[in-house]
Amino acid sequence: MDATLQPFFHPTGIAVIGASHDPVKLGFGVARNLTGSGYRGAIHLVNPRGGELMGHAVCRDLASVPDPVDLAVIVVPAAAVPDALRACGARGIRAAIIASGGFREVGAEGAALESQVATIARELGVRLIGPNCIGLLDTHLPLDTTFLAPPPPVPGDVAFVSHSGAICAAVIDWASGQGFGLSRLVSLGNQTDVCETDVLAHVASDAHTRVLTLYLEGIRDGRRFIEQAARVSREKAVVALKVGRFAAGQRAVASHTGALAGQEAAYNAAFARAGVIRAETNEEMFDWARALAWCPLPAKRDVAILTNAGGPGVVAADAIEALGLPLASLAASTLARLRGVLPAAASLQNPVDMLASAGPREFAESLAALLNDDGVGAVLVITPPPPTHSAEAVCEAMIPVIRAAKKPVVVTLMGENLVRQGRELLRDARIPDYRFPERAASALATLARRAAFLDAPTPEPARFPAVDADEVRAVLDASAPGFLPQDAVARVLGAYGLTLPRIVLAATADDAVRVAGELGYPVALKVASPEIPHKSDVGGVLLGLGDAAAVRAGFATVQANARRAHPAARLDGVHVQRMLPEGQEVIVGAVQDPQFGALVMFGAGGTEVEGVKDVAFALAPLPRAEAEAMLDATWAGRKLRGFRHLPPADRAAAIDAVLRLGQLVADHPAIAEVEINPLRVRRDGEGVVAVDVRLRRS
Amino acid sequence: MDATLQPFFHPTGIAVIGASHDPVKLGFGVARNLTGSGYRGAIHLVNPRGGELMGHAVCRDLASVPDPVDLAVIVVPAAAVPDALRACGARGIRAAIIASGGFREVGAEGAALESQVATIARELGVRLIGPNCIGLLDTHLPLDTTFLAPPPPVPGDVAFVSHSGAICAAVIDWASGQGFGLSRLVSLGNQTDVCETDVLAHVASDAHTRVLTLYLEGIRDGRRFIEQAARVSREKAVVALKVGRFAAGQRAVASHTGALAGQEAAYNAAFARAGVIRAETNEEMFDWARALAWCPLPAKRDVAILTNAGGPGVVAADAIEALGLPLASLAASTLARLRGVLPAAASLQNPVDMLASAGPREFAESLAALLNDDGVGAVLVITPPPPTHSAEAVCEAMIPVIRAAKKPVVVTLMGENLVRQGRELLRDARIPDYRFPERAASALATLARRAAFLDAPTPEPARFPAVDADEVRAVLDASAPGFLPQDAVARVLGAYGLTLPRIVLAATADDAVRVAGELGYPVALKVASPEIPHKSDVGGVLLGLGDAAAVRAGFATVQANARRAHPAARLDGVHVQRMLPEGQEVIVGAVQDPQFGALVMFGAGGTEVEGVKDVAFALAPLPRAEAEAMLDATWAGRKLRGFRHLPPADRAAAIDAVLRLGQLVADHPAIAEVEINPLRVRRDGEGVVAVDVRLRRS
Repeated sequence: MDATLQPFFHPTGIAVIGASHDPVKLGFGVARNLTGSGYRGAIHLVNPRGGELMGHAVCRDLASVPDPVDLAVIVVPAAAVPDALRACGARGIRAAIIASGGFREVGAEGAALESQVATIARELGVRLIGPNCIGLLDTHLPLDTTFLAPPPPVPGDVAFVSHSGAICAAVIDWASGQGFGLSRLVSLGNQTDVCETDVLAHVASDAHTRVLTLYLEGIRDGRRFIEQAARVSREKAVVALKVGRFAAGQRAVASHTGALAGQEAAYNAAFARAGVIRAETNEEMFDWARALAWCPLPAKRDVAILTNAGGPGVVAADAIEALGLPLASLAASTLARLRGVLPAAASLQNPVDMLASAGPREFAESLAALLNDDGVGAVLVITPPPPTHSAEAVCEAMIPVIRAAKKPVVVTLMGENLVRQGRELLRDARIPDYRFPERAASALATLARRAAFLDAPTPEPARFPAVDADEVRAVLDASAPGFLPQDAVARVLGAYGLTLPRIVLAATADDAVRVAGELGYPVALKVASPEIPHKSDVGGVLLGLGDAAAVRAGFATVQANARRAHPAARLDGVHVQRMLPEGQEVIVGAVQDPQFGALVMFGAGGTEVEGVKDVAFALAPLPRAEAEAMLDATWAGRKLRGFRHLPPADRAAAIDAVLRLGQLVADHPAIAEVEINPLRVRRDGEGVVAVDVRLRRS
Repeated sequence: MDATLQPFFHPTGIAVIGASHDPVKLGFGVARNLTGSGYRGAIHLVNPRGGELMGHAVCRDLASVPDPVDLAVIVVPAAAVPDALRACGARGIRAAIIASGGFREVGAEGAALESQVATIARELGVRLIGPNCIGLLDTHLPLDTTFLAPPPPVPGDVAFVSHSGAICAAVIDWASGQGFGLSRLVSLGNQTDVCETDVLAHVASDAHTRVLTLYLEGIRDGRRFIEQAARVSREKAVVALKVGRFAAGQRAVASHTGALAGQEAAYNAAFARAGVIRAETNEEMFDWARALAWCPLPAKRDVAILTNAGGPGVVAADAIEALGLPLASLAASTLARLRGVLPAAASLQNPVDMLASAGPREFAESLAALLNDDGVGAVLVITPPPPTHSAEAVCEAMIPVIRAAKKPVVVTLMGENLVRQGRELLRDARIPDYRFPERAASALATLARRAAFLDAPTPEPARFPAVDADEVRAVLDASAPGFLPQDAVARVLGAYGLTLPRIVLAATADDAVRVAGELGYPVALKVASPEIPHKSDVGGVLLGLGDAAAVRAGFATVQANARRAHPAARLDGVHVQRMLPEGQEVIVGAVQDPQFGALVMFGAGGTEVEGVKDVAFALAPLPRAEAEAMLDATWAGRKLRGFRHLPPADRAAAIDAVLRLGQLVADHPAIAEVEINPLRVRRDGEGVVAVDVRLRRS
């Protein structure tokens, strides 16, 4: 953890620069919230007009503020911020939250001011949160540097880190309505200095925080984020909502891989690597956060459903199944126990339908029976407003059973007004409640996912030590930007253990015939031109030429086809290659992602890659387990195990190619994109053949 | 509409058989709700003990009930229901709601009793809702035959028809919490007589009902449901939640089509045909229903987003984009108008970010400007709890603008407690509000979808009058159940205008050589056996044999391969066929779905159909537009338009094949499944070739 950020999270004294008597000013709100927060350090309100505010004497300038003071909250107009910062430097304050707006977010002039502020802070050694942010809030310390209208959040165990300031007030309000509290809230604003990655470890180190929720509009340094988040996520669950799908950076698109490697693929790969759980909506993020904060993790994935109504039980079973969790098979002893509690007409098989007559005793005892079953990893309880018993009574009976259990239980209290009191009881007991079975099921699935993540060892990227990085650097240094010629490509891939079949350039038809004789018939011809990327599209490829006459005629054909399609392209002749053995054709490619660096792709190869879209991505270098998961995520990868008449192919060699190509691109950022398409995966044990490879240097 | 159901929806007098003084009995609840509902017809409470209840004299038997009475609500124990029904018959009552449980849902004995009840009702001409149901509720008539605990639903314009009784109380309670009312509620219970399809038209005919919501656990007669729902959905929006994904009926699975044609594919196809909007969750169903009930439909799909905060604006834009709606480009005049209202730093391009300072005036005037823009079809407004202005004030200012508009506006009021009053104002004004932008976007997308549905004409299935159904019947009548031999298949398909290439059976190698000479070289050989379905999997197919010697050797090879794979199979020799022209290979198949009948599939053909899963389904016979949509829904279909080096193929011929195969299977239910795989689609104008066809008779 970065010690220079310590004053933000554990300040000994705080100066509010721009504290105001005027209730419409932000400086009023900050003074009100800070003084009312219960903060136990020193509070200094600063305003040139002096006087008294909220029972505190107002200092006329920062210089006159007594010790201790190690954090400033700046709420003066933007133009006055540079001076305020200089005053901080002079007073020895090394951490400042700039709540004021009027910077980069309002245009070029503001951006210039922000850059000036950043420079001043750097020179003075002052760390900054903001500008244009809500600030910081800690419900346990307690501490509140925000100007948000009351009420402040209820203390809780979910931390919220946000790129959007506007959403913070809504989240606080919504959380209190949903019955969960926040531990810390960090609004980062324009992030001119401190960014989401910087605060991760600090927020996670808080003993009250059990789950981190992140509202991200982008990540500046992708690799550093992954490194920090991966460390944090081993200790505490991290759930992220990433908004803004519009592409951020310029991206390589000359390859299939580049065309498909969208920002979303990169973020998904990054979150997967870092153990960050990605939510698609705000509601999902907090639905999951509550369960992660309050429930033990399941030791097994099997879910039991307990309901007093058939219909919602079916909905829950559908949702559980759709999320990939199994429905638990109940033990005979459990069924016997249920039979003792429930009426004869009850349906004992999971979902257990106790019927509408079920009251507090039936709920509690059936739940206990299910939790006692070794085959049950988690229980989803559903109670529509019971016709005869109140939701409150049912919840009251279940709560001790749930609190005593080492397995997660989530409760669907259907309805709204009739279940209000039951809901309050559950929330007080830290048991997550949902209005509908689908959302409860989704929470359970997240718990199972988190458990699986923690059970698996932290994967190490596969490394091939025998690679020759110097050789690759030499080739790249000697090459111009753009697509490399085939011999250079062969050297680069060869240096990383990926051998290409021998391809010989023939400038004339005579040459081609001679080379074909050396390589052995039948041969393939491909037009040789650095300016024609998709050669088969223009009739620039001929296959299976069986003799000299065919090669001679073929040379003329591909030259003519290429000339017709690209009249201005440079033609160097043809590449001659012996026809290759058969196999399943896949694509393996890699590109540099602007946020996250090397991103590797595996999937269905050929010319229809973008149409079929049967591809998977991972960050490189990657662990072997992730490469295996890429194969399992695509049909092209799954069928390498064999499918009907397709014999099992050499999966291990395909995985090896993914890992090596990933390492190559991760080691050499000058490789903008590289793509083997197709990579022909031969029968099991026979290896792979890189039929066609393109590599672009940036 | 079925006149015999009229008493359920407009009864002149109601008898409650089993009205009870005991508050724990359902008969008490029914009496309480009915007498308290404001029902203006005659109310007769019936109980052998007589006396008085809820201010009504209790009749000792049904015979003594005076006129008018045309509906009975039966809440006596199950065993007493037959006698109660007989009493209804004797008293001339022809409609009864059996609320009592204890029938099919409790096992075999109950099922026998239910079947007895159904028989009695049929004999007496009494229509039944239930048993084991909540009954009926109409908030406008008003009428309430349920036993649900108060409060009853608020009057509104959303009708709810449910297979699940248990969910009804939750939905009523939840609806009141969400601020929308119900018009009618129909709980159907065991549906021993009246089912969801029967009540559709009745519920829709209610002037107060603007949207029908259906909670379905299954549909008994799929084609009748489609017919009724298609009629209703032209007048009123129908949103359905179908639960229970576990397969219901026995299904053909000997073909690729059968293996992929799950219950979900059939329901999706059916809902699409009927114009029913399928929701995935309860929340979606009612989120959409509120918007459909309260908003005008958009004349164009383009959405403008108005926000006072950047972050949530981005979330909304993401969601709008993900749902396939365009973000509106704003007219210069709109931008000028916004510029006049908003501060210089505001972001005027859609999403329009007014900044946090925006108050009631800015919201109202900017919204008016957007609604006035001809390029804007709908507006999504977002307001996080405003830092300076209350949500209430903002809503108050916007409501007259929204009410005056002919375009839909949905509002995201982020937060919970701080926005409560604003939310109430919106709900009173019938403006749908949501907590998060994603759900608001989803509601707008549903409005756009509904508008598109109403704009399109009701599609008529394509019919080919020149087909020869008698020929097909003759072949099927002469065939045993199972796969038909190739010549029979050729006759069946030929009768529907789908010609197969000539295939000749050769029993011996000599025969094969002779036939090949007649057909012309090169030829293909396929092992002829009714007992080997996937011939290429076992090496039973050889292609491109160029001369007599190759055919002679090939005959031996395929026989040996087939024998090795299926030692016990009957081998009839080989089928000889001239090698076919090239084309893009697709699959076209059709099966009988147990609920919905003929279901046709189109997609990526070959042997990997189930792995690639690039397929689309529709009910047959189908309109040409639906066949086109199937092509557009799959990569195999889209690439028929041409892709890179693939020339455009004969899409029209492929569509024709889908339509004809669909008509064939729809006309002949004895065809359990038929599949053309591959169907080779030649270049545009050259037609299609059915390379391999299998047809199974049931």
